[in-house]
Amino acid sequence: MEIKVLKDIFASNESRAEEIRSLLREKKVYMADFMSSPGSGKTTLLDSVIGRLKDRYRIALIEGDIKTTRDAERLAVHGIPIVQIETSLFGGDCHLESSWIRKCLDDFDLDSLDLVIIENIGNLVCPAEFELGDDERVVVLSVTEGEDKPLKYPLMFNSSHTLLLNKMDLLPYLDYNVDEVMENLRRSNPKMTVFRTSSKTGEGIDEFVKHLARNIEKKRRP
Amino acid sequence: MEIKVLKDIFASNESRAEEIRSLLREKKVYMADFMSSPGSGKTTLLDSVIGRLKDRYRIALIEGDIKTTRDAERLAVHGIPIVQIETSLFGGDCHLESSWIRKCLDDFDLDSLDLVIIENIGNLVCPAEFELGDDERVVVLSVTEGEDKPLKYPLMFNSSHTLLLNKMDLLPYLDYNVDEVMENLRRSNPKMTVFRTSSKTGEGIDEFVKHLARNIEKKRRP
Repeated sequence: MEIKVLKDIFASNESRAEEIRSLLREKKVYMADFMSSPGSGKTTLLDSVIGRLKDRYRIALIEGDIKTTRDAERLAVHGIPIVQIETSLFGGDCHLESSWIRKCLDDFDLDSLDLVIIENIGNLVCPAEFELGDDERVVVLSVTEGEDKPLKYPLMFNSSHTLLLNKMDLLPYLDYNVDEVMENLRRSNPKMTVFRTSSKTGEGIDEFVKHLARNIEKKRRP
Repeated sequence: MEIKVLKDIFASNESRAEEIRSLLREKKVYMADFMSSPGSGKTTLLDSVIGRLKDRYRIALIEGDIKTTRDAERLAVHGIPIVQIETSLFGGDCHLESSWIRKCLDDFDLDSLDLVIIENIGNLVCPAEFELGDDERVVVLSVTEGEDKPLKYPLMFNSSHTLLLNKMDLLPYLDYNVDEVMENLRRSNPKMTVFRTSSKTGEGIDEFVKHLARNIEKKRRP
């Protein structure tokens, strides 16, 4: 019984994600979904990424949180269109679903956009289970989080395209083995593209921005 | 329909949690549930805590993970009874439920135990929704995770008793405002007991161990 209902939820979520995929293909808008644990530095990193991209591309942001609009407020300084999903207003869900993303997209003028960024809820588990119709799933993993995370949260790492290994500036103060996390990642998802990043020093941000720009261009002129 | 089923799940989880509470009251066994984001340093911290308590109290461990038995293996060095729940074997759940805890307790000889430690799945959202029948909910929050977490994950902080503000050794290398997180905590749950801890320097561990010991004693001689 429980399983049946869960299947229904997932099936309906996936068919809605397919609709989103078609819509964004037609409108030539690239969509990237950023996921991570709480406190990985996702919002600060998006601040740097949006700052570097906004003069070249027209960006909109969907901001997911259980509670508060703090992240949306932090990113509002860029003057881009933002829609906040605050799940505590309707049950406190731990993830975003495609039907909510569909509603957010209605609030944007897709004909005048190149890129939609989703900042998902801080959770390394459940968001991975819900397709949102995006082109790219980006996982932000902080080097303070331990080397074993790709093995312990396999769906998140298996189903994502890009890893930002973040807070690289803290490496000198940690007993952290980058080779080990890379080896665990290879075992979990050998196809993942990895950038080592730091919002503090700027390391890797330009490289990741170039990667995003290439993907945006590819979708505009397929 | 979905909501009805969810209510059923929660109701059945809570009644099982009540059973566990009665059982542990009768057996005078204290149970503490440790929750956090992935990478907060929970396992390393439990290693220190168990090491300091195991000569005075008889401890058992329930280890929750989606995938891998790595944390259980790390804590097995203490020679205490451990049961691993690996949720990927039955669907990959993002939290622990009371019926599984009940089964784990059957594996222990409760008459010869003082303390059961649960290491919950690394997730600051869903585990808070499921009562497990414990005496104390402990949240481990690393100072690398940002000051806003008590506001952004209200259920986790509202429903817990104790906060371990962890990785205090990293404070000199972070732009982190301890006053701000404490103020956010006061707004979210003013009754929470807070310990500032570091597994690296040992800061706060003895204080937290004393606190646990007091609670264990209280339950043994109510």
